[in-house]
Amino acid sequence: MPATPAWPPRSAPRLHVEADLGESITVPVDGNAAHYLISVMRVKDGDAVLLFNGRDGEWAARAADIRKRDLVLECMEQTKALEAVPNFWLCAAPIKKARIDMVAEKACELGVAKLQPVLTSRAVVDKLNLERLRTHMVEAAEQCGRTAVPDIGEMAKLDALLRDWPAERHLFFADELGGAPMRDAFAAHTGPAALLIGPEGGFTDQEREAIRAHSSAVAISLGPRILRAETAAIAATACWMASNGDWAE
Amino acid sequence: MPATPAWPPRSAPRLHVEADLGESITVPVDGNAAHYLISVMRVKDGDAVLLFNGRDGEWAARAADIRKRDLVLECMEQTKALEAVPNFWLCAAPIKKARIDMVAEKACELGVAKLQPVLTSRAVVDKLNLERLRTHMVEAAEQCGRTAVPDIGEMAKLDALLRDWPAERHLFFADELGGAPMRDAFAAHTGPAALLIGPEGGFTDQEREAIRAHSSAVAISLGPRILRAETAAIAATACWMASNGDWAE
Repeated sequence: MPATPAWPPRSAPRLHVEADLGESITVPVDGNAAHYLISVMRVKDGDAVLLFNGRDGEWAARAADIRKRDLVLECMEQTKALEAVPNFWLCAAPIKKARIDMVAEKACELGVAKLQPVLTSRAVVDKLNLERLRTHMVEAAEQCGRTAVPDIGEMAKLDALLRDWPAERHLFFADELGGAPMRDAFAAHTGPAALLIGPEGGFTDQEREAIRAHSSAVAISLGPRILRAETAAIAATACWMASNGDWAE
Repeated sequence: MPATPAWPPRSAPRLHVEADLGESITVPVDGNAAHYLISVMRVKDGDAVLLFNGRDGEWAARAADIRKRDLVLECMEQTKALEAVPNFWLCAAPIKKARIDMVAEKACELGVAKLQPVLTSRAVVDKLNLERLRTHMVEAAEQCGRTAVPDIGEMAKLDALLRDWPAERHLFFADELGGAPMRDAFAAHTGPAALLIGPEGGFTDQEREAIRAHSSAVAISLGPRILRAETAAIAATACWMASNGDWAE
């Protein structure tokens, strides 16, 4: 007797949607998403597509009514419950477009709950297209298997961020003047956390003083080499995930 | 009495050169490097430029004889000894251009000793421009303060790499079928190490079997999300550096 082929297959496309998902719900799809499924992935009637919306977990849906520019997806079964995302925020100063886009993509893959843009004195960029960052995160979530896209906060000024900081959340920051090795800092400070990364030019002395003086702040060291802002963000996020996040489970 | 300004200043440009460096040695510079110093960094006579060549540490040099397309740099004093680089190789399957360039840049910043391209069955790219990768690494070394550019190996086939593997070097590889959390794997296996990362499509079953069967291989887990090849390479390298490299010193 031949084995029953697994359904949905591992190669099924994954798609983030806004619609509710659940037993016998039908989701109409058009626009870019329909183009992707029909023309790029060549989805046929009956093929599986995995759907998630950040609220209802992941559902395997069956493609139907495929036309030139739209199709419908019928939810068949839940394939993943809504995941518990590690309680970790990445607070990053805006940097140039290609590099902040990379940070958004990698932050999503690595598992952050929230990306919080932070405006500091030396920022060379003072505006961010949050919609574009969200698009990169949606694509990363589709690719990496998350059932929710990370939240993105509105840009906050550093002093306001520090003033309104939730007391129970550790604020790790890479201090050029030195700090604890990440290994030790993360082991000593478990629980909700955030990582604060400055812009390419670093923090000013005054900013560094304000951060160091904050009761939630924990200075960390990222080693003897000078990391670019996006490298520091990705590297320290990965180290936190491996130490205190869900990579050790 | 005013404080003597520090020389060389922190803002001094850094430049990788091929020439020998040392007491009273003069290095002529032309081409792109001269254009960068003269037209981009606007270096004037007497300004400091930091030089390194991978052999003689870092030297502060003084700019002289600045003309339109060339200048000379006179070595004044050694500012860093040749660094001891963490004994870590990144063995990575080639992936698309922008993403492998990113891996080369980040590998250098993070501190790898060697980048070893590895050809596997599912590689979508089977040629690599090693000169271009090296250019990215030179720029990253100039930026991050290294005194040597990582070595780049010629592309090796996976079976040859495994056959000729140096027995004393741990070969960590991210196994989709599961492995030890990095935290535990790195703590249990100190000493010379390498990380093996497959292409976008992963290893074949046969390749995975061959790697698992190797006496130096240690399977690691990179968490519950599916990381892109370059994300896995950067994240696991950062975690090794923070745990077993020179980030904890």
